[in-house]
Amino acid sequence: MATTQTFPPVDQRHQKPLGSIEVPPRILLGPGPSNAHPDVLKALSLPPVGHLDPFYVDLMSEVQELLRYAWQTDNRLTLPMSGTGSAAMEATLANSVEPGDKVLVAIKGYFGYRLADMADRYRAEVVTIEKDWGQAFSLKELEAALSKYKPAILAMVHAETSTGVCQPMEGVGELCKKYDCLLLLDTVTSLGGVPLFLDAWGVDLAYSCSQKGLSCPPGLGPFTMSPRAEAKLNKRAGKVNNWYLDVSLLNKYWGSDRVYHHTAPVNMNFGMREALRLLADEGLENSWERHKKNAERLWSGLEGIGLELHVEKDLRLPTLTTVRIPEGIDGKAFTLHLLKNHGIEIGGGLGTLAGKVWRIGLMGYNSTSENVDLILNLLDKELPRFRDNSACAA
Amino acid sequence: MATTQTFPPVDQRHQKPLGSIEVPPRILLGPGPSNAHPDVLKALSLPPVGHLDPFYVDLMSEVQELLRYAWQTDNRLTLPMSGTGSAAMEATLANSVEPGDKVLVAIKGYFGYRLADMADRYRAEVVTIEKDWGQAFSLKELEAALSKYKPAILAMVHAETSTGVCQPMEGVGELCKKYDCLLLLDTVTSLGGVPLFLDAWGVDLAYSCSQKGLSCPPGLGPFTMSPRAEAKLNKRAGKVNNWYLDVSLLNKYWGSDRVYHHTAPVNMNFGMREALRLLADEGLENSWERHKKNAERLWSGLEGIGLELHVEKDLRLPTLTTVRIPEGIDGKAFTLHLLKNHGIEIGGGLGTLAGKVWRIGLMGYNSTSENVDLILNLLDKELPRFRDNSACAA
Repeated sequence: MATTQTFPPVDQRHQKPLGSIEVPPRILLGPGPSNAHPDVLKALSLPPVGHLDPFYVDLMSEVQELLRYAWQTDNRLTLPMSGTGSAAMEATLANSVEPGDKVLVAIKGYFGYRLADMADRYRAEVVTIEKDWGQAFSLKELEAALSKYKPAILAMVHAETSTGVCQPMEGVGELCKKYDCLLLLDTVTSLGGVPLFLDAWGVDLAYSCSQKGLSCPPGLGPFTMSPRAEAKLNKRAGKVNNWYLDVSLLNKYWGSDRVYHHTAPVNMNFGMREALRLLADEGLENSWERHKKNAERLWSGLEGIGLELHVEKDLRLPTLTTVRIPEGIDGKAFTLHLLKNHGIEIGGGLGTLAGKVWRIGLMGYNSTSENVDLILNLLDKELPRFRDNSACAA
Repeated sequence: MATTQTFPPVDQRHQKPLGSIEVPPRILLGPGPSNAHPDVLKALSLPPVGHLDPFYVDLMSEVQELLRYAWQTDNRLTLPMSGTGSAAMEATLANSVEPGDKVLVAIKGYFGYRLADMADRYRAEVVTIEKDWGQAFSLKELEAALSKYKPAILAMVHAETSTGVCQPMEGVGELCKKYDCLLLLDTVTSLGGVPLFLDAWGVDLAYSCSQKGLSCPPGLGPFTMSPRAEAKLNKRAGKVNNWYLDVSLLNKYWGSDRVYHHTAPVNMNFGMREALRLLADEGLENSWERHKKNAERLWSGLEGIGLELHVEKDLRLPTLTTVRIPEGIDGKAFTLHLLKNHGIEIGGGLGTLAGKVWRIGLMGYNSTSENVDLILNLLDKELPRFRDNSACAA
């Protein structure tokens, strides 16, 4: 058959010589990632085990159960997708949209557009309604659109990371049931830090990330699906148009069968287990209260030094605050200065808010009064200097 | 606008009380994951930085350059997908297949079928040729199929993890050029451990994983794409039917623009950077030679204790060996015994080889003569006892 193979010489051009990795210390007060809890980082560095090891199979169940707690849902199909939050976002659409399904996306920021783009790739008939970046939808606006379009799915964002707005959810699930459509919700910047009641709210599909309210590094995308959404998946005509994110396959690994699907990112799941364990130890109510208290301290401090908040108080996210960049300040140069000279990351604006706002995150492990005071003091001290262009050497 | 929201009480049923994570020690000598290098684990536990931090942007370039070295390619579009090897596998198809394209899959094991399933989901016209599990394709067989089907893409597996076969690649790329089709290659179980020369072999699309020859935990999927494959992507009529894996979007983040796409799994990339740095320090030729030497030690040891190897010598992978399970032994009970009582994982068979073979991996950090002797001694000592059913209490 085969004879011994011969090979060309190895090309050394890309053999870049490097020393051991050295990571600069950062306090991450932007839109995410946030700093991870030290126990989570320790868990990440534990030696891996096999993805079908009985120990790991038990750990999977722990992660699932604690995700149900964090999201306040009984959904059987609750699991972290083996990718970042955007993968879990795509999973909610890939598993619910059949070609030709009408999907209504309620857009009030950057991530609403992403939902629309993704739904389009799964051949949905996408219709949209829009609000200004910094506002939320009223029940009346949502009902008008549901009644007009009669979609199979309403997709919207609970915590819009681009604007800092928290969409009130009371009554939305009832509307979706009335108009016989599934409710799909982005909870990327709310899980762990903002009150979330998926079952009470009638949410059918939701996704989140690991690197914000859960105090874990980025790399996993929590996903959940209600029995109603599962029923739609079970009666679809063709295969899900995505193998990696196909829940009908993943269910065999995460469900009772534990049949191999893909090699799980075991170390990331060690970290996720610890992150969820720490959240359960603190208790949801305590975590939500802590985020609220620190956000309020930040808001009054920002106003105290003369800065303007972009979102009205009742709609503000406790996890992420948008602050208007004062006249005469180069927002991007200032964030670079904070990062390079103080090791502190805050975010710039996205989309229509680019250049207009900064985004300050207080999420999970980083939602502390010390961090609030740190960023307030820095803004207070550095902004005036920066306004004179004296600190532009960043 | 919004009034203060009210929430239901928190349901505590899923608030599972747990202690800190404790992971049992394992030596992973199965089909993967393999144990990770201690320096890689240390890197994983470093505090995260932002995905647009100048430090991280530099690290991305290091990872890309060292991946080019490991794969022996100059491809500009060389990057780790933010998912496991299966995500990178899907990325090669999602970015190359347009609906109606003919894709020829050369199947000689489990992962060939997976390629066919994935290609089907991107609406390819899938045609297949098959070989018995344990064999490889000859150039004559490949040319006959290329000439018969005239596909747009030939997809095949270099290192078939389900059988332990290494497909000889000499001449395949020339055939693909002759028949004007792209060559897509699975290198999941070869990268880092088995000679691989993507450019010299004329490979247009390839994918791999982090958890085998690279000594990193699972979670990232190296991906690469030649200028020929890039040209096909650039002239496609519609969007890629997968947002998360769309290289035309990812290119803006990994290319010179560094525009936000998704929040990168930064800690996994810290680990990947260290894993690739360690491979470059050792040198590809040395790593390949080490894998070969330890595999040969394993093969002669296995034959020395009377076990039969499933694949003929010239086609064997140095990273993964398939051993026939002797008559009278319950293969699955034996692997469970090794895991539970000795902390050692070896793999069972997949698909048509289920119950017929064990799969012993010697990959990356785990390819050592000590591990070879450990598993040989265990098999020598435990198999006879197990044959008498005296050790079945696993």
